[in-house]
Amino acid sequence: MDKHPSPPLNGAESLVATLAASGVELCFANPGTSEMHFVAALDRRDGPRCVLALFEGVATAAADGYWRMAGKPAATLLHLGPGLGNGLANLHNARKARSGLVNIVGDHALDHARLESPLKGEAEAIARTVSHWVRSSTSAADVGADGAAALQATRDGAVGRIATLLLPADTAWGVGGRAAVAPSPLPPQAPTGAVAEAARLLTRLGPRALLLLGAGGAASVQAQHLAAAIAERTGCRLMAEFYNARMPGGRGRPRIERLPYNVDAAQARLAGLEALVLAGSVEPIAFFAYPGKPSQLKPPGAALLSLAEPRHDVTPVLQALAHELGATAAAAPFVLAPPDAAIPIGPLTPDTLAAVVAATLPADAVVVDESVSSGRGLGGPMAAAAPHDWLAVMGGAIGFGLPGAVGASLGAPGRPVLVLEGDGSAMYTVQALWTMARESLPIVVLILANRAYRILQAELQGVGARLSGDKAAAMLSLDGPALDWVALARGHGLPATRVDSAEGLARALREGFASNGPCLIEALL
Amino acid sequence: MDKHPSPPLNGAESLVATLAASGVELCFANPGTSEMHFVAALDRRDGPRCVLALFEGVATAAADGYWRMAGKPAATLLHLGPGLGNGLANLHNARKARSGLVNIVGDHALDHARLESPLKGEAEAIARTVSHWVRSSTSAADVGADGAAALQATRDGAVGRIATLLLPADTAWGVGGRAAVAPSPLPPQAPTGAVAEAARLLTRLGPRALLLLGAGGAASVQAQHLAAAIAERTGCRLMAEFYNARMPGGRGRPRIERLPYNVDAAQARLAGLEALVLAGSVEPIAFFAYPGKPSQLKPPGAALLSLAEPRHDVTPVLQALAHELGATAAAAPFVLAPPDAAIPIGPLTPDTLAAVVAATLPADAVVVDESVSSGRGLGGPMAAAAPHDWLAVMGGAIGFGLPGAVGASLGAPGRPVLVLEGDGSAMYTVQALWTMARESLPIVVLILANRAYRILQAELQGVGARLSGDKAAAMLSLDGPALDWVALARGHGLPATRVDSAEGLARALREGFASNGPCLIEALL
Repeated sequence: MDKHPSPPLNGAESLVATLAASGVELCFANPGTSEMHFVAALDRRDGPRCVLALFEGVATAAADGYWRMAGKPAATLLHLGPGLGNGLANLHNARKARSGLVNIVGDHALDHARLESPLKGEAEAIARTVSHWVRSSTSAADVGADGAAALQATRDGAVGRIATLLLPADTAWGVGGRAAVAPSPLPPQAPTGAVAEAARLLTRLGPRALLLLGAGGAASVQAQHLAAAIAERTGCRLMAEFYNARMPGGRGRPRIERLPYNVDAAQARLAGLEALVLAGSVEPIAFFAYPGKPSQLKPPGAALLSLAEPRHDVTPVLQALAHELGATAAAAPFVLAPPDAAIPIGPLTPDTLAAVVAATLPADAVVVDESVSSGRGLGGPMAAAAPHDWLAVMGGAIGFGLPGAVGASLGAPGRPVLVLEGDGSAMYTVQALWTMARESLPIVVLILANRAYRILQAELQGVGARLSGDKAAAMLSLDGPALDWVALARGHGLPATRVDSAEGLARALREGFASNGPCLIEALL
Repeated sequence: MDKHPSPPLNGAESLVATLAASGVELCFANPGTSEMHFVAALDRRDGPRCVLALFEGVATAAADGYWRMAGKPAATLLHLGPGLGNGLANLHNARKARSGLVNIVGDHALDHARLESPLKGEAEAIARTVSHWVRSSTSAADVGADGAAALQATRDGAVGRIATLLLPADTAWGVGGRAAVAPSPLPPQAPTGAVAEAARLLTRLGPRALLLLGAGGAASVQAQHLAAAIAERTGCRLMAEFYNARMPGGRGRPRIERLPYNVDAAQARLAGLEALVLAGSVEPIAFFAYPGKPSQLKPPGAALLSLAEPRHDVTPVLQALAHELGATAAAAPFVLAPPDAAIPIGPLTPDTLAAVVAATLPADAVVVDESVSSGRGLGGPMAAAAPHDWLAVMGGAIGFGLPGAVGASLGAPGRPVLVLEGDGSAMYTVQALWTMARESLPIVVLILANRAYRILQAELQGVGARLSGDKAAAMLSLDGPALDWVALARGHGLPATRVDSAEGLARALREGFASNGPCLIEALL
């Protein structure tokens, strides 16, 4: 399927043409010298649109957020090993989110790489720590085919994977490039081999069995309805994993409890189970180990039955299971009424904040949640909010929220985006604010400013450590000086406002969504 | 040399005690859950002072800057593989600067690490890409000795190395910790075996030989005087490497030309050479390869003679060489008069900016240079400035400047620090501004705001790529929206001002240095 236009292509041009021919529409870029031929090639061909990031972690998280909404890979453009390093934490997150993306990493020319030049690094070794697929092109003629292979590697059934293509500068500038096209992805499998056993288990055990939805299942409203019907029919418990790459929620959708983060709470919710039926999910494991507490959260003797793996299409599997059980989706009783129209008035607390967010969320919004400690009260009220998709930070590396929203917005054009963001976590990739402004994206950033690493204050207790003095306490405080989020937003080119009351927050959120452009709200908690 | 205080130590406490007993005074920290026992241990022992960073790349660059001024290692405290990943680019820079530091990276508890937990990553593999030494503790009883071994590994003669100690959470909270002390570092060797040959070469070849100082040699004013005397005596050329971790300059110091960055210019300056005598330096290699240009900058036939490696103490070697040649330091003619007292008036250009900076620099200042394109005119005028130390970004990964200044300031208490910083490069680790404010450091940040990736506009030409349209040009522009550096600084808690004239810049610099605290000046170019 090669194309042979004239004039002859260089390697970089063949890669741009390959990306375009294979359906890649976006490239999140933070280029350097070794990527200049790729940048120049963008002008010569109808290549992907390039979105500039001022820090590499913005580019990688944006590609993650884009995959979650668009369901297809974007490219990133990064500079050498250090540029890839700056993007590594959010690649870790993307990997845990099972998002697909292709990193294009410029590297030194092949002859140059043998010398101890000042910028020499270990790009390939760094890439291998987080990528499912790594290749370094060896000639301009191969770059197009390598790009197509990279794109093919970004998908495994229903889930995505991380592919990293290293592009030595001379393979980019060398002539003889040939564009290629990545083959169309295969549809994900839907194995039904475990349906009969799952039906027997759930019927026999009822509330002593759990149907656990993973991100793949939770992402489909249809799968949620099927799971709810199955739970109603069999009396089994129904939960979703604690963090989900994309989970529909709000009015008209089944309300599906998420497994708690806290180990004690998770164990309590799983107590008495004799079997877990995994529907696109994996065995529940605690985020961290704590002294004297288990890492495996299920009761020790409980059986695990894999109905569908994350890479499978869980919806037809749940259809088969519902059919086997005679469960009908329409019978599920989980649909809720709209929230109380009255907006709370008075101080901002986790409760009033949650009520305001739920009441003001526009229909069809995308919520990106990196609220860490301050947002944990949102689960209840959001069930009555307008229908929305909920994107959690996966992998636990802080810094997904702001840039993830950039990608989610570009992957879901026309939909309003709300970012729930802690003040501590927002700082890791704060540069994303500038890209929001540059691209005029309809994103409302809500900074939950508690001026502390509150999550760590809780974790400190969880691991059984105690503070006896000021030195350690200072490590968990963001006071002195307080970050001024209104100034930070304006510095990045974003309008911003500060609120400290529930009614002020409601007004700011409504104005922000109505503006249809980016803005930031600092909520003092 | 173990200590056995009561009550018994846990692993984290033994590590804090080991760091303190081994002379580590500072820990640049961005902790997470797995580091909570270490944080708690800081309160219980007279451990290093902890300086909080809001992003890991701030912590690692600060440790680099600290080593360059204090000549001893600081610790960093980072969270798991992703935290290490966020610090990776500046660890690459620190490695190229030959700075010594020890990363303490919390990791999952040993039993927990065997499970597929959400945060599981590849901390050790990531560490190996940039560290000279990596170890993961296997029991609380070993943590103290492991810490001492890590500290020992941070030094190799005159230069530093990167050591990374992974601390699984259960080795931190487990009891039975034993504090240790790292052995005192060995003094660097000063091999004089090549002195006689170097003397013959330089005498015979005169201007057809180059004495090339590396960062180690350039860091000593005495070595600079010796090298200048040798050059005067033999007629050889004298240069320093383009980038130096720390290079004294200003009035009363020999003026030593640096090798140009540009390949053509470097080749021109090295033309006609028959030998290079390397004094703490390495063979000159271009930063990047360019089509049709060499990577090795010296004339093809020129010989290389290693007088001293970077890890050697170059000063006694140069003393021996000067003695062999009968060169006396006092005869060197490089001392310059103070700069013209008249500050230029009018628009800010690279020339007027350089004149103002040179004229207003206080005595004994530390200049951290990440000015990239805008600062290349500074070389000349700075020779007449007050005596200072010049710290360049090493390794070429952008984002060293602001956090490097934090570390340099803490490593050189009482000395004023000036950061020359591009607006594009400042964004990579902008969070360092907050740590400057929190620690009340006497740092003046001068942002050279050209609102573009100007260096890349130049590199684009260098690699022979051409832009034909707006898409690629947009990737190199930081306009739309312009970053507001006054707002960004205030958002981080720093006073700030904007200037667009030479006289305005002079006033702002003088006020900034007089304030003895941190401030930011946005200079519109």
